[in-house]
Amino acid sequence: MNRKIVFGVTGRFLEILSLLMLLPLTVSIIYKENRVFVAFLIAIFIALSIGVTLRLLTKGCNKTMYAREGFLIVALAWLCASLVGCLPYFLSGEVPGFVDAFFETVSGFTTTGASILPDVEALSHGLLFWRSFTIWIGGMGVLVFMVAFANSLSDRAIHILRAEMPGPIVGKIVPRAKDTSKVLYIMYIVLTLIQTVLMICGGMPVFDSITHAFSAAGTGGFGIKADSIASYSPYIQWVIGVFLVIFGINFNIYYLMIIRRFKTAVKSGELWTYLGIITVSTVLIAFNIRGIYPNLSDNIRTSFFQVSSIITTAGFATADFNLWPSFSKAIIFMLTFLGACAGSTGGGLKVSRAVLIFKMIGREIRKMLHPRAVTSVKFEGRDVDDHVQRSVSTYFAVYMMCIFITFLFLSLEPFSFETNFSAAVTCFDNVGPGFGMVGPSGSFAAYSDFSKIVLSFCMLFGRLEVFPMLIALNPATWRKR
Amino acid sequence: MNRKIVFGVTGRFLEILSLLMLLPLTVSIIYKENRVFVAFLIAIFIALSIGVTLRLLTKGCNKTMYAREGFLIVALAWLCASLVGCLPYFLSGEVPGFVDAFFETVSGFTTTGASILPDVEALSHGLLFWRSFTIWIGGMGVLVFMVAFANSLSDRAIHILRAEMPGPIVGKIVPRAKDTSKVLYIMYIVLTLIQTVLMICGGMPVFDSITHAFSAAGTGGFGIKADSIASYSPYIQWVIGVFLVIFGINFNIYYLMIIRRFKTAVKSGELWTYLGIITVSTVLIAFNIRGIYPNLSDNIRTSFFQVSSIITTAGFATADFNLWPSFSKAIIFMLTFLGACAGSTGGGLKVSRAVLIFKMIGREIRKMLHPRAVTSVKFEGRDVDDHVQRSVSTYFAVYMMCIFITFLFLSLEPFSFETNFSAAVTCFDNVGPGFGMVGPSGSFAAYSDFSKIVLSFCMLFGRLEVFPMLIALNPATWRKR
Repeated sequence: MNRKIVFGVTGRFLEILSLLMLLPLTVSIIYKENRVFVAFLIAIFIALSIGVTLRLLTKGCNKTMYAREGFLIVALAWLCASLVGCLPYFLSGEVPGFVDAFFETVSGFTTTGASILPDVEALSHGLLFWRSFTIWIGGMGVLVFMVAFANSLSDRAIHILRAEMPGPIVGKIVPRAKDTSKVLYIMYIVLTLIQTVLMICGGMPVFDSITHAFSAAGTGGFGIKADSIASYSPYIQWVIGVFLVIFGINFNIYYLMIIRRFKTAVKSGELWTYLGIITVSTVLIAFNIRGIYPNLSDNIRTSFFQVSSIITTAGFATADFNLWPSFSKAIIFMLTFLGACAGSTGGGLKVSRAVLIFKMIGREIRKMLHPRAVTSVKFEGRDVDDHVQRSVSTYFAVYMMCIFITFLFLSLEPFSFETNFSAAVTCFDNVGPGFGMVGPSGSFAAYSDFSKIVLSFCMLFGRLEVFPMLIALNPATWRKR
Repeated sequence: MNRKIVFGVTGRFLEILSLLMLLPLTVSIIYKENRVFVAFLIAIFIALSIGVTLRLLTKGCNKTMYAREGFLIVALAWLCASLVGCLPYFLSGEVPGFVDAFFETVSGFTTTGASILPDVEALSHGLLFWRSFTIWIGGMGVLVFMVAFANSLSDRAIHILRAEMPGPIVGKIVPRAKDTSKVLYIMYIVLTLIQTVLMICGGMPVFDSITHAFSAAGTGGFGIKADSIASYSPYIQWVIGVFLVIFGINFNIYYLMIIRRFKTAVKSGELWTYLGIITVSTVLIAFNIRGIYPNLSDNIRTSFFQVSSIITTAGFATADFNLWPSFSKAIIFMLTFLGACAGSTGGGLKVSRAVLIFKMIGREIRKMLHPRAVTSVKFEGRDVDDHVQRSVSTYFAVYMMCIFITFLFLSLEPFSFETNFSAAVTCFDNVGPGFGMVGPSGSFAAYSDFSKIVLSFCMLFGRLEVFPMLIALNPATWRKR
């Protein structure tokens, strides 16, 4: 194990994080929020000094990096980002508990959007901006950002991307890892800009537009109003709903479109399954809640918005689905589990994994009926090799196990089965709202510090797809060879 | 597809079922229950005539049988058994609805023990006996019984055993399928007898002892009292609790002991994991509910009994765990998912599958860290081949999917998330009681007929481990080649 490169890259990452924090610092200057300004200043200073120290200590080290180092860098960078990123909340005194501040920051970076704030509107502009900005950074990946824009990184940065990017198969769009990251971030920035402009044109204040565009792009779902998106105009709701769907699509497809390979782009099985599930869920819910929203346009908009918000694992709300009939709630619950497309900013199990699992079940049945037949599983026009199949089904098992373990820990609290179980699912899948007490109009404030720490790790496990965290938490990994 | 053998064997099975119904018929004579006697007579007549007709129509047919025929025979026999077996309830008028009677019978044969009866004590002796007897027949497998004791069956009966017996790897104890079935049934009968005698010696009435021994042996959990086992003496509770654990162990281990291969028997990893989980769960729950049961002996007995009853998927109760703290309920919930050992009469996912899944996750991590290393998964001292690994993880996925789909259907009902979700889990895992309305002191009576049919199929899917039912319900399977 090359410990030096792990600490070196983490140091470099902290330096970049401190630069990124200049943005919310500027916002706090604009809005003349002195306490918040000072809090950011201290946080930046801490991040920068740790970062520089780590980098100097590991200067000129061996740059070799394998899968193991990739996992460790990712786990460590995300933990550091959360620990440093929570300082502004805590130091400004706006979130008095350190654990609460940590939870809120992890929830941001992991694009969960679960909150412990009893009243979000009481927060200052600087922190509201930071809250949404953490989502934007975490959405495409904190390290993808670094790989894209920092020089001096080893050629082996692909190991970092592999460990951080979700989905069953991580492909490079272009041959070099650095270029892949750049292409991804440029598309990400352009889409975020388009959404911001569309919302400003719809009469949304500039600050609101920017923060909501950040939260939507990372599919995180931190709003700045107590009722999330409900009080904005139908136009704004449609823009956010549609852009969530856009950010939930595999970014490879946009790249294919940019290089004019439209035919390959529209052949994606995952894309059509994803759009199909959104359509079917919207129709089913619209029919089920017709009693609550008799006006057809309200009905469709509300159903579509909630479906889009949950399947992309954003978690914005224009309605409290906690009050909907059980059938609609069950659909919302399934979408929470499912998540968006691989290679998007959405979390969850991913549509492609679900499709692969269905195909593998089909293969299993064929194998049972014809034990000697040669069977295979095809996806996106190609044979899926056995190793990928095994890793998809193993991931599903480890995914369920993490949810069960989190649920077991949460059960030490006196809340209902529905609250605790949905809290575990919604945090692991990085959605945000669950049912019961943690529904769209509730919050995680009532949980104990212990449970908040458990849920924070649950979010990190979910966002990083378990293995980087599991490997980093195993002391054996850190031993020198 | 050899349809004739499928119908022929199903016919033969119905004949045997009609013979088995002579037992409850006799009970109804002893207790002078005329209506029940007539009901059984009609049911026997119907089963016999359909059976004989089917057998005569397919006489002298080609006896070749492959995996496909095995699956179809199992699916068809279980459906027929449930449809014929529910007639006594319905015809006697004691369960007025046909769907209710069907649900209760499926619940018996699948050893679930979920009930729609608002007052079990109002049932006649003949039907109480039949209720427990269906569990006993279903526990070891209705077709295993036929293979063991009917002649005239093709040599290829192994395909039937494979389709009916649960667990990831179905092994023959002795070379011939017929002998394997016989050995299994003899051990099953002897253990049931020992338990009955032990309970009679403890002062339990003979009728109660026999019915409870049947329900315990099949790990089904139909009692004959409104409060299940709570009003019986601590001695009886211990006997039932311990025997449930015994019936939840892989029967191969008993066979190994009989042929004096003790060393091989005690080396079983599954056995020790199973006993370990029971011990840990009992201790955790005992500690968690110390406020409710301050007396240590009551506390341990109650904790152990509920753990043993749920992990073996029996579902007897000496306490209403619905009223326990959330943490204990969460443990009960996890045990509901897990189930007992493969090759036992218990249902659920099976301990061996869980162990294999854990090992496969370990392998996946090793593979991630050392992509070129040759990795393998060992279980019970042997390498587990890739096909078994794939089928274990695919089974886990299909298992979760069945639970989700059942939950989605149940959500059309106005009951709570906890009730609907635990109903789906408890029926699929063949446990019986869930939480909320379907808790140990509740029943499934309030569900609509539609939901009861969904739950009946859910129980059959769970007991037969999905694939036989899935294959039988696919019209393509029935086409002639």
